[in-house]
Parts: sequence; structure tokens; C-alpha cells
Amino acid sequence: MLKRIAILGTGLLGTSVGLALRAAAFKGSIAGWNRSPEQAQLALKMGAIDSFAPDPVEAARASQVTLLAVPIYATIDFMEKLAPVLGPDHLVTDVGSTKRLIAEAAARLYNTPERAAFLPGHPMAGKERGGAELAEANLFRGAVWLFTPDAKAQLSPRGAELEQNWRSLVAEMGAKTLDLNPVRHDELVAWVSHLPQFTATALSALLEEEVGNAPELKDVGGRALREMTRLGSSPYSMWRDIAHTNTEAVERVLLALEQRLAHLRENLRTPELRSQFEQANKFRRE
Amino acid sequence: MLKRIAILGTGLLGTSVGLALRAAAFKGSIAGWNRSPEQAQLALKMGAIDSFAPDPVEAARASQVTLLAVPIYATIDFMEKLAPVLGPDHLVTDVGSTKRLIAEAAARLYNTPERAAFLPGHPMAGKERGGAELAEANLFRGAVWLFTPDAKAQLSPRGAELEQNWRSLVAEMGAKTLDLNPVRHDELVAWVSHLPQFTATALSALLEEEVGNAPELKDVGGRALREMTRLGSSPYSMWRDIAHTNTEAVERVLLALEQRLAHLRENLRTPELRSQFEQANKFRRE
Repeated sequence: MLKRIAILGTGLLGTSVGLALRAAAFKGSIAGWNRSPEQAQLALKMGAIDSFAPDPVEAARASQVTLLAVPIYATIDFMEKLAPVLGPDHLVTDVGSTKRLIAEAAARLYNTPERAAFLPGHPMAGKERGGAELAEANLFRGAVWLFTPDAKAQLSPRGAELEQNWRSLVAEMGAKTLDLNPVRHDELVAWVSHLPQFTATALSALLEEEVGNAPELKDVGGRALREMTRLGSSPYSMWRDIAHTNTEAVERVLLALEQRLAHLRENLRTPELRSQFEQANKFRRE
Repeated sequence: MLKRIAILGTGLLGTSVGLALRAAAFKGSIAGWNRSPEQAQLALKMGAIDSFAPDPVEAARASQVTLLAVPIYATIDFMEKLAPVLGPDHLVTDVGSTKRLIAEAAARLYNTPERAAFLPGHPMAGKERGGAELAEANLFRGAVWLFTPDAKAQLSPRGAELEQNWRSLVAEMGAKTLDLNPVRHDELVAWVSHLPQFTATALSALLEEEVGNAPELKDVGGRALREMTRLGSSPYSMWRDIAHTNTEAVERVLLALEQRLAHLRENLRTPELRSQFEQANKFRRE
């Protein structure tokens, strides 16, 4: 049984995991750490963690499962710091939005019988802004929680057991799990997550130049405009590491959309426009 | 006082206007016509109209105000048919999504002291699909209802009075009105309405090719993907006339978005990406 979980990073995702574990009747203790202690204090006040851990490495050593809920490069830094002090009785997992670099670090630093186990994870849930104050126990309900386990991992028996424990807890938080190869993961999320975000950012930035100085004109767009630009409020800080660690895949999907928009533009008065609408309709049909 | 209004076209917008007029305690009668009589019967059953008018021209002649709530080219056809049979005691108005061609037809066929008055209108409200069955009395509440009156119009006294009556009714339906020049209207809606729609259509059509055959992968995208592709379910029939009557402006805004996406793509690892996110954030700030 899991007695203690450490959550390193109590922003939106880390705090929501703490709340979701409690809602799923997890009985063990939850230690939390955050770079800015105010966010950890807020997570404590919200009941997402039981105690504030001043030393994240010490908190991981004293827990069976450690969840890294920090940006991608910070996740890799923690993986390097924790690997030498953890052993076969520990599991580390994460919530990073791209998985290739993290899976490579896991293969290099974890997942032998003598070392701690590492299960790369990525809950497809979030909001356009971060922060513990936006955390919700139901954030993962109905969402897909992706894992990119290393097919060559040789886990200790205890490591394998902890991995099963964590997968069960994720299911109890209401998420559907799906295992993918890390490279395929990064290509897929480029299409279904990064492309929608960068499109909303491009559209919002463009519209700010065109109609930003006339607030009454923003109202004109109504619901459709609000919806298509909502993700435009997402801060650079949440997307920097994604742009840096999934550059080639994001370049590919952006280029594909540029070409598709040009295709529509060149066919506004031809029957091909109807085909494009029909193909779009098909995507939205259940 | 307005005793009788004719609504020609009882789809989503026409039927919603009927319901909204009733909710605003409009006391006169409302006659409705639709090309397919089933939609008119449905509007009648919903209480949006009091009677089904088998002959639209006759219904317009017997009303003080006629609302054309049909696609753009059908609106212009009706304008041509109605102009010779209506006179200075009539107002015709419409809900067409582009206004340049309609305003030109109004200047040609209406708006002299001897002729009927025509007030081009465009409520910025709608849904991704049409049909009387989706109509709502509250559809226009909080929405902007644009008008593109002809500065050179010389209305009959009764025409001017009917225009004021209609503007008051629109306000009573809960909409905020805004007057624009028709050319400026078509440029503005290209940015805030047509660009979001064609972007969602392009994105949905592209994703249908990439992940359409793997339904479990659509789930991966979560709320952000659903939101950015919702308009993708909008049918070609609702957008054909817009693409045909506002081609140059839509071409311009699509090209601008293609260029903006290329700019993001070329700057995924440079500080310029931060500027683009900050500019997008600004658009979403109140």
C-alpha cells in the first residue's frame, strides 16, 4: 500500500492531483513542495497536501511515489537530482507535456532493477492559465492520462508494483489511461494540443493588431470569436518548454495548417470549398 | 404602432426573432414564410409566428415591416421581387452576414420618398448549425446587432418612423446596435467572424485527415481541441454566400493568418515567440 506521495510543484496540475487523490479516498499522506512557497501554502490550505516539504529531494526520499508537476526542463533537472538518492523502492512519475526528452532521461537514469522506477505521464487536462488557485478535484474526470513507458525498462518488483498502484490511482481520479510510444506521443499532441494552442495564439495576436484598439469591435465577434481566442490568454511560460522540446513536430503541424488555409483561400469560389467543409463536418461527427 | 411583421425565412434567425419579439411583448401579429413549409410549421408550433403565409410577397405587402432572414443571394432576390409591390408605408430589413451587395441593392431599389425603406441589418448571433428547432428567444441578448444604413437614403416620413420602430424592437430583444459603413462592415466581420470560422474549418478538415480514423485520439485533445473545432461542424450551406460575396476581404484575412502562423513557426525557439504570446494575451485582457 502507498503510505506517502510527494508532489513536487503545486501549481494547477500538482494541486489538482492532490485534491483528486483526496476525492478518490487516498488514505496516505501527501507532501508538497513548490519553488514559490506561497503556492504550496495555498495547496496546503486547500487540502491538496498535508504538509509543506522544504526540501524536495528529502520529500521524494521519504515517499514511495513522487509526482513531478513542474515544466519540462525542470522535470529533467529533478530526474537528475533524484536518481542518485532514490532506489528500487521508489517510483517517480510526471505530468510533462512532451515526452521524448523525459523518456530518454528515464532510460538513462531510472528503470533498472537497482534503481528507482520512472513512469512518464501526461494528463490531457489543464486550463489556459496555471496556478494552485485554479486547481480542481475533478480536473481529470473524463480526461485521457497518457503514459509513455519504456518497453526496455527492467523494473524492480517493488517498482513494478508501485507503477500499478499509481495507474490505479490515476483511474480513481476519473481519467482514462492510454499508453503510447514517446515519439508518437509528441507527434500526436502536436496535432491535437499544440496546434490548437499556437493557432489560437496566432489568431489572437493578429486580431490584437487589427481590432485591439476598438474594444466595441471585439464584442461584434460574439461567442465564436471568444471561443476561438480563449486559449490566446495562455502565458508564454506554459508553452516555452513545449516549443523548445517538440520544435520539429510543431513546425510540421503549423506548416500543414498554413497550407490548408491557403487551400481554402484559393478555393473560396470553387466546389472544393464544399469538400473542405464536409471533411471538417466529418471530424466533428461522433 | 406596428401591427404586422412578416418574417420571410423561419430558420434559426427568423424563428429566434419571432420568439424574441414575443418575449419583448410585441403585441402585433407575425406572419411567417419559409421555402420548406416544415420549418414554418415548426416556427408556428413554437409560437414564433402566428400564421403561415403561403405567398411571401403578399405577406410583405400586408405588413408594415418585413424581415428577410434567408441567405444573402436569396435576400437580394427578395429585395428585387418586393421593391415594385411595396411603397413608402413599408420597411424591409434583413439579417444577412455580408452587407456590401445588400446595401448596393437597397440604394438601387429602395430608400427614396416614393419607395419602401430598406435597413440592412446583421445580428452577430447564431449557432454552428441552423434550423428553427435550435431557435431561442434569448439568442440576441447581449449580442451586437449591426446596421449599415445608407447615408444618402431619403426615406418617406413613415419609412423613417418604421426604421425607428424596428431599432427599438431590436433593443427590446436585448441586442446592442451599432451602425457601420457597409464596406467597413464586411472588412470587420471578415476579421472577427469569417476568419474564426474558416480557421476552425481548416483545422477540423486537417485533423480529420490526421487523426480522424482513430476516435480515441480525438479524446486526447480534450476541451481545447473541442473548442477550437466546434465551428468545424458548420455546414457549407451557411457559408457559401459569405465566401462568394466577401471573397477579397476573406482572402486578405486568411493570408494574414497564414503569415502569422509562419512567423510563429519560424520563431519557436526565439524570444519573438514570447512577444507573440504577450500580444495574444493582450487581446484577451478586458
